[in-house]
Amino acid sequence: MRILDPWSITDVEDYNRLIEVFGIEVMSEDILKQLPFLNRYFRRKIVFGHRDFQVIVKAIKNSEEYAVMSGIKPSSIYHLGSKITAEQIVYLQQLSKKARVFYAIADIEAWEDNGIPFEKSLEYAVDNVADLITLGLDLKRAYIYLQSREPRVLRWGYLFARGLTRNLLESIYGEKHLGMYMTAMVQVGDILLPQHPDFGGPKPTIVPVGVDQDPHIRLTRDLARKYSGKFKFVPPASVYHKLQWSLKGPGHKMSKRDPMSCLTLNDSPEKASIKIRNAFTGGRETAELQKKLGGKPEVCAVYQLALYHIDDDEKVRQIFEECKQGLRLCGECKHEVAELFANFLRNYQHRKKTNIERARRIIEDLVAGY
Amino acid sequence: MRILDPWSITDVEDYNRLIEVFGIEVMSEDILKQLPFLNRYFRRKIVFGHRDFQVIVKAIKNSEEYAVMSGIKPSSIYHLGSKITAEQIVYLQQLSKKARVFYAIADIEAWEDNGIPFEKSLEYAVDNVADLITLGLDLKRAYIYLQSREPRVLRWGYLFARGLTRNLLESIYGEKHLGMYMTAMVQVGDILLPQHPDFGGPKPTIVPVGVDQDPHIRLTRDLARKYSGKFKFVPPASVYHKLQWSLKGPGHKMSKRDPMSCLTLNDSPEKASIKIRNAFTGGRETAELQKKLGGKPEVCAVYQLALYHIDDDEKVRQIFEECKQGLRLCGECKHEVAELFANFLRNYQHRKKTNIERARRIIEDLVAGY
Repeated sequence: MRILDPWSITDVEDYNRLIEVFGIEVMSEDILKQLPFLNRYFRRKIVFGHRDFQVIVKAIKNSEEYAVMSGIKPSSIYHLGSKITAEQIVYLQQLSKKARVFYAIADIEAWEDNGIPFEKSLEYAVDNVADLITLGLDLKRAYIYLQSREPRVLRWGYLFARGLTRNLLESIYGEKHLGMYMTAMVQVGDILLPQHPDFGGPKPTIVPVGVDQDPHIRLTRDLARKYSGKFKFVPPASVYHKLQWSLKGPGHKMSKRDPMSCLTLNDSPEKASIKIRNAFTGGRETAELQKKLGGKPEVCAVYQLALYHIDDDEKVRQIFEECKQGLRLCGECKHEVAELFANFLRNYQHRKKTNIERARRIIEDLVAGY
Repeated sequence: MRILDPWSITDVEDYNRLIEVFGIEVMSEDILKQLPFLNRYFRRKIVFGHRDFQVIVKAIKNSEEYAVMSGIKPSSIYHLGSKITAEQIVYLQQLSKKARVFYAIADIEAWEDNGIPFEKSLEYAVDNVADLITLGLDLKRAYIYLQSREPRVLRWGYLFARGLTRNLLESIYGEKHLGMYMTAMVQVGDILLPQHPDFGGPKPTIVPVGVDQDPHIRLTRDLARKYSGKFKFVPPASVYHKLQWSLKGPGHKMSKRDPMSCLTLNDSPEKASIKIRNAFTGGRETAELQKKLGGKPEVCAVYQLALYHIDDDEKVRQIFEECKQGLRLCGECKHEVAELFANFLRNYQHRKKTNIERARRIIEDLVAGY
C-alpha cells in the first residue's frame, strides 16, 4: 500500500473489505462537497463510509428535520474514542438548525456488560454529559435520557425481540448471556426512538459510529424494515469512522484495562504527556536510519493522535512531511504532540468544570422526573 | 389407586412426583385449619401443594400486609382455567383486609407468544378484567396494570436477565426465540413488583398458579434470593392447583384451538350445554354394565366440571355416589350438570354486563395515564 497523503494514513487497516462484504458505501467526494462544512474527521477521511447518508444530506439541503442518534455506556470516563463519537454528534447537529440530538445514557448496557447497577451509573453519566456539552452539544436541540428510565425504549426492546432466533443472535454477537441480547434490543429501541410517535414519528436519523458497531446498525435497519408497515420507519442512516488505536500502536484497541495506553479527557495534562511520551511510534531502529529513510507515520500512534485530535491541518501536514523526510525524530515529535495535546486538555478541562453542574442537574432531573 | 372420596378424584395424575422431585410442599390439614375459611378448590384438595404458604398464613393471622400476584395473557376470553386462577386470587384477597392484589395484563406475553400487538390486546383485557371483577375482586385493594406500560416491570426484566445462560433458559423453557425468554424475565418482574420500593418494599407475596407454572416460580424465587442483598425480597410463595382437563377427558389440556372441548365464560348457556353433552365421560359400554359396575367419575370430564365449578358440596357428593353405585347414567348426569352450569352462566353473564364498562374505564385509564 502506498501512503499518498497525510489523510489516507489510516488505510493500513482493511476497511475496503467492510465496504465489499457488508455493503457499506464509500464516503464520496460528491457527498462531501454537498455538506455546508467538514469537521476534522470528514476532512481527513477518518469517516470513510456510510449507509444512506444521502438521506441526511437531502434533509440538510431542504431544511427538513432529522435526528442525530448516539449514546454512551456510563461505565467510565470519556476516552478518545468517546471523544471522536461525541465530536461527530456535535458536527452532525451543527450541520442544520433542524437537527435534533438523541443521546442515550446506556445504563442497561453498563449493567449487563459490566455489572454496574443503574444507580451507580449516574456519576459517570454526569461526567460523560459534561464532556458532551463541553465538546459543543447544543442542549436546546438535544434529548438526553437514561435507558432504564425511558419506557418507550424499554418497551420497544421487548417488541423487537419477537421471533429473533438464537442462530441470528449468535451470528451477530457471539454466544452471550440473555442480558447482552436484551441490551442489543434496547439499542435497537434507542436508534429508532427519534421516530417514535411521541417525537413526531418517522424522520431521517443518522447514527455516527465506529465501524465495529455496524452489526447493530444492520440489525436495526432490518428491524426497521420489518416493522415499517406499522411505524413507517425511515431506515436509520450511519456514518463510520475508522478506529483510533491505543497508544500501543496498530492492532491495539483502546481499553480502560490498560490505562497507560488509553488517554482520557480527565487525564491531567502532565499524565497525558507521560502517556504520549511512552507511546509506540513509527521510528526506525536508529536516528541515523530515521534521517536516511524517514519515519513511518502510518504505524505511529503519536501521528495518529495528531491526525485524530489536532485540528490544525497545517501542523499535522508538517508533522507528516517532516517525519517522512527524516527531518523529525521521535523524541522531539512526541514532545511537540504531547505539548499540543496537554494544552488542549488544560483549556478543555477548564471549560468542562463549568459544565459539571449543568450535567448534574440534567441527570438529577432524569431520575426525579421519572 | 383407590378412589377414597369425591375430593381425591384428581389424584389420577401423578402430582406426588412433583412434590418429590421439585420440592413442592403438600397442602397439609395443619395449614388448612389455620385459614379463616376455605374456598371450593382448597376444600376439595384441588389445591394440593405450595411453597412457603405458611408465610402467608402467618401474615393473615398477624394482620400483616401481603400481596396476591397473578395475571392474564390477554389473547382470548376467560376459559375455565382462567376462572380457577381468578377465583383463587379473589379467595386469597378475601382472607385478609391486609391483602392487596397485583394483576398483570400480560400484553408482552401475548405479543411474544401469539403475535398480538400491544394495542390489540386491549379488547381482551377489558373482557378479562370484567370477569375478574364479576368473580369477586375488590378493586379498592387491587393494582391492575399492562406489562408494556409498567416501566418498573420492564426495567426489572432487563435487570434480572444479567448472567442467565442459554443452558439455564433452555432447561426451563426449551429452545425459544429471544422474545419468549424476555417474556420470562418480565414475569419475574411481575411477581416481584409488589415488593418494589414504590409499593412499600419487601412483603410476603402469594402466587396462585396451575402446577404447570412452577418453573416460573422456581426461577423467580432463585432470582429473588440472588438480589436479596439489594432489594431484601421475601421469596414469593405459591399455591398449586391441579389442572382441569378439557371436555375430552384425561390427558387433554384446555385449548382455544379446540373450542368444542373448552368452555369459556362467554359461551351462551345453550352453547355450553351442547359442549357438555358432547363431553367425554366415565361411563361403561352399556347401561346394564353401568348399573352393575358403577361409572368411573375419576376419568369423567363431566364429573370434573362439577367438582371444579359447582359450589354445592352435597350436590357434587350426590353425583359422585350415584355414579359409583350405578344409580346414575351418563345421559341424565350430563343433562343435570349442563343445566347447573348453564344456570351459573346465565346469572354470571347478567352480572358481568354491568362490569364491562368499569373494566373499560380501568384499561382506558391505564393507556391514557401513561
